[in-house]
Amino acid sequence: MVTVALDTMGGDYSPDEIIKGAFDALKKDKDIKIILVGNKEVLEGRINKEFSDRCESVYSSEVITNEEAPVAAVRAKKDSSIVVGMNLVKEGRADGFVSAGSTGAVLVGGQLIVGRIKGVLRPALAPLIPTEKGVSLLIDCGANVDARADNLVQFARIGSLYMEKVIGIKNPRVGLVNIGAEEEKGNALVKETMPLLKECCDINFIGSIEAREIPKGGADVIVCEAFVGNVIIKLYEGVGSTLLGKIKEALTKSIFTKIGAMMIKSSLKATLKSFDASSYGGAPLLGLNGLIVKAHGNSKANEICNSILQCKSFKEEALSDIIREKMKKN
Amino acid sequence: MVTVALDTMGGDYSPDEIIKGAFDALKKDKDIKIILVGNKEVLEGRINKEFSDRCESVYSSEVITNEEAPVAAVRAKKDSSIVVGMNLVKEGRADGFVSAGSTGAVLVGGQLIVGRIKGVLRPALAPLIPTEKGVSLLIDCGANVDARADNLVQFARIGSLYMEKVIGIKNPRVGLVNIGAEEEKGNALVKETMPLLKECCDINFIGSIEAREIPKGGADVIVCEAFVGNVIIKLYEGVGSTLLGKIKEALTKSIFTKIGAMMIKSSLKATLKSFDASSYGGAPLLGLNGLIVKAHGNSKANEICNSILQCKSFKEEALSDIIREKMKKN
Repeated sequence: MVTVALDTMGGDYSPDEIIKGAFDALKKDKDIKIILVGNKEVLEGRINKEFSDRCESVYSSEVITNEEAPVAAVRAKKDSSIVVGMNLVKEGRADGFVSAGSTGAVLVGGQLIVGRIKGVLRPALAPLIPTEKGVSLLIDCGANVDARADNLVQFARIGSLYMEKVIGIKNPRVGLVNIGAEEEKGNALVKETMPLLKECCDINFIGSIEAREIPKGGADVIVCEAFVGNVIIKLYEGVGSTLLGKIKEALTKSIFTKIGAMMIKSSLKATLKSFDASSYGGAPLLGLNGLIVKAHGNSKANEICNSILQCKSFKEEALSDIIREKMKKN
Repeated sequence: MVTVALDTMGGDYSPDEIIKGAFDALKKDKDIKIILVGNKEVLEGRINKEFSDRCESVYSSEVITNEEAPVAAVRAKKDSSIVVGMNLVKEGRADGFVSAGSTGAVLVGGQLIVGRIKGVLRPALAPLIPTEKGVSLLIDCGANVDARADNLVQFARIGSLYMEKVIGIKNPRVGLVNIGAEEEKGNALVKETMPLLKECCDINFIGSIEAREIPKGGADVIVCEAFVGNVIIKLYEGVGSTLLGKIKEALTKSIFTKIGAMMIKSSLKATLKSFDASSYGGAPLLGLNGLIVKAHGNSKANEICNSILQCKSFKEEALSDIIREKMKKN
């Protein structure tokens, strides 16, 4: 049995879609228990009787918004859904915590409340991004910028374990984001990190990866520091949504194109669905004593459900223990 | 009259598409003269009689490939098309030089042969990227990474002049690439640059721009250091081509979708064309004593033609002189 705490107060579609996602996960997997965390007035009477043996509520009274400064908010709002949920993980009452709320507060709470695994220099926020071939892990997209070379080496190791154990990719290819494939290319950080990664015999390091190759699935684990990672994840979303908007515009231009659009709709939908990362769930915050998953702010039930299911593989594979062991060795 | 030297030896479609692009430009604009630079066996007898009064050839005997180390190649191959073309600009025989050849060699040649404008710390490679609203200038995507704050401030000023004078956008909005809109966000370089840009009263600085907002046209001049710029431009291309590939796949899935595809084809093409930066030409290398334009390696006649036309506005607006004046003042 895996127990997942769920923040019902965060995200654009809170609380309805979040709660729906919880029930979907309970329906899909009998070995999951969920603790809904949120305000009493939101949660009272909401738990479906069908799931009452595997679902409970823990009430919080405060909410941290996206506008608040994360460190101050986590310290001040002890009874917020994020802090209460994180404490459930810390106390061992839950194995993981899923939130679509403030990214900053989730990152800060993870470090301050759940705590880093001994030896981990920095936890990393590592979203899964869709590619032509399936999905890659982009590590790090967190809030701690200006990383050092030894941080990136840890990201490569931890990301590699995640892709292998949780996503099930054997011997995942690890690439370091760079501006060219040649040896002499790169900024100071990349040049310092490159030889260190080459020496790691416990990962399948394939060298530089140019940004152009990321959507093509050029590597399974994409290593970079958080500033660059943030640019990549946000541009990915931005270019995708702009292009799809343009296409929609073209499809609705005339009655003629509208008929054509009807004929291609289901095929287009199916193809684009394979390019949608939300089917894998949110971004895990890796390197902590417990799994914290940050779901998109605009998550609907589907992504919440998948984020919860992700916690199960994480627990079953005992990923925290494996990372702990790895950190002792290196 | 504006004279543009053109490298006919560089790019995937050299020499045919390159030469076609030259003739297209000559046809479109009577005030342009072109000097074709390339091997004798390639160019001999190629000049259309119709244009013989506005087009001449200058022969070179060597070619710099993408695989060669740029600095060594520019120094060793004095009779390469890139070096010969740059020398035409240096000697004042041409106002600008367009090449779809090795980016590294163009960047190095620009600095070593054509030379920086006095006061310019670093020349910047500044491609135009398509957005929902039209086009933005991404500055810098060059080869010099690990920029300093004062480099970025110059990029903001020079980029702003380019967008105003050459592209014709009044009072262009300048944004600094960042990982969030809040004051405290950013890496060390961004935090150092932000207050300096705020003090610049000669540009329309609008603050941070997140990568997500770039395709939406959130700023006209997107300022960043070259490593980040390189990631942005390559990811832009990569996500776009992967998504369009997926869509093509969906459209050709069955006879039914193929009929639908025929009905939407022309509308889709027209819409996507507006999201194609090649209609603006290649990337100018800004801050040099003359205009150097780096066209995509995969440029066809259309992009070459537009890159040549770009040189005309550059010359007419006397952009080098304006940048020189600006550098004296700041």
